[in-house]
Amino acid sequence: MTEQAPPPSAIDTDPEYRAAVIDLLGVLAYGELSAFERIAADAAMAPLIDDKAALAGMATAEYRHFVQLRDRLVEMGVDPQEAMDPFRRAYEEYHAQTTPKDWLEGMVKAYVGDGIGTDFYREIAAYVDDDTRALVLDVCDDLGQSEMIIDRVRAAIQEDPRAGGRLALWGRRLVGEALSQAQRVAAERDALSTLLVGGVDRPGTDLAEIGRMLARLTDNHSRRMAALGLAA
Amino acid sequence: MTEQAPPPSAIDTDPEYRAAVIDLLGVLAYGELSAFERIAADAAMAPLIDDKAALAGMATAEYRHFVQLRDRLVEMGVDPQEAMDPFRRAYEEYHAQTTPKDWLEGMVKAYVGDGIGTDFYREIAAYVDDDTRALVLDVCDDLGQSEMIIDRVRAAIQEDPRAGGRLALWGRRLVGEALSQAQRVAAERDALSTLLVGGVDRPGTDLAEIGRMLARLTDNHSRRMAALGLAA
Repeated sequence: MTEQAPPPSAIDTDPEYRAAVIDLLGVLAYGELSAFERIAADAAMAPLIDDKAALAGMATAEYRHFVQLRDRLVEMGVDPQEAMDPFRRAYEEYHAQTTPKDWLEGMVKAYVGDGIGTDFYREIAAYVDDDTRALVLDVCDDLGQSEMIIDRVRAAIQEDPRAGGRLALWGRRLVGEALSQAQRVAAERDALSTLLVGGVDRPGTDLAEIGRMLARLTDNHSRRMAALGLAA
Repeated sequence: MTEQAPPPSAIDTDPEYRAAVIDLLGVLAYGELSAFERIAADAAMAPLIDDKAALAGMATAEYRHFVQLRDRLVEMGVDPQEAMDPFRRAYEEYHAQTTPKDWLEGMVKAYVGDGIGTDFYREIAAYVDDDTRALVLDVCDDLGQSEMIIDRVRAAIQEDPRAGGRLALWGRRLVGEALSQAQRVAAERDALSTLLVGGVDRPGTDLAEIGRMLARLTDNHSRRMAALGLAA
């Protein structure tokens, strides 16, 4: 998986690679801050105090991930706000287009939407140096919410089978919106795209491997929808 | 301040006192969870990423306070959800009646509304045993938000002096709503009220001292409004 990965020293010697890593940490950092806000909003909608507390705990874990990324940016001599700023609009449009109408939609979004996001960043991690990869994999760790979400969503569908159809559509919409924002980011941020497609001194991955990556992302997405009892 | 305070052993020997402590920890725990949610919502409204990150950090500190209180309830053999449940409605009505229309109202609420709340719990702390008092004072600690809030609110009023009038009214409304919910809780929760007014084996405080306590709460409130540049 890591044959294309440059050595950590490339951050200092290859300005294009350095820019790509800053973009990657910036997009992840804003994503964590944004995940914090969203999971906290889900906590506010939770009918049970125990679920509320569990979600608040997950939100604080997202915040700790944010702090790790921010601290790394500072170590690199980068202003975190500047690194995150280019990605703010994409996240805000994604969230504006996919504001959950209720607690269940929030749960599906936390599992399915965040799931495809972290899968993607884990794929990208194959193309970066060891230090950056360790950080990316660490912040993409599952926070243990999956089990609780699967349990609550399945129970809700069992109680009201019509909810299944509505939530399946919702899952498709989440992925569609995530992809359209990802495409915008890829088009606007050359440095970030070169991690995959290659740069002046770095070979990119080939089209066949990108195809396999997309197949893995799609498979995982379908697996998550199935775990919730939803048609992908 | 602590002449009325029972020994920590009273939790085991005096059922009425034990019920009062459970109520106190329960109301504080739900308050922290609720503060977590609200500050996270303020973070979502923050125009600057740095402010957003700072508020998210404060929200996670509130969550840690919640965990301390919940753990103490569990140590006491109490189901935290049961201890918090009686106070949920009062907090939710308070927040429903005082939903900030914008980021500035959120900041004033975090400073003025939470301020009078923690002042009140700090006063109550004088009437409980040493162990409970230490925990209450710890979770009522200022989280360092004050300085940032004062700075942002004063700057906003300087830029738009009319905002001062609107925010002063807002501050008065916050206190009015907080008092009406506090009165409801006092009326519904006998055990909690006996901390102040006394129980079978415990002397309460006298009316003159309650008057002085209310004067201290009012003074502190006026001082906070003045710090924001607002008429109390």
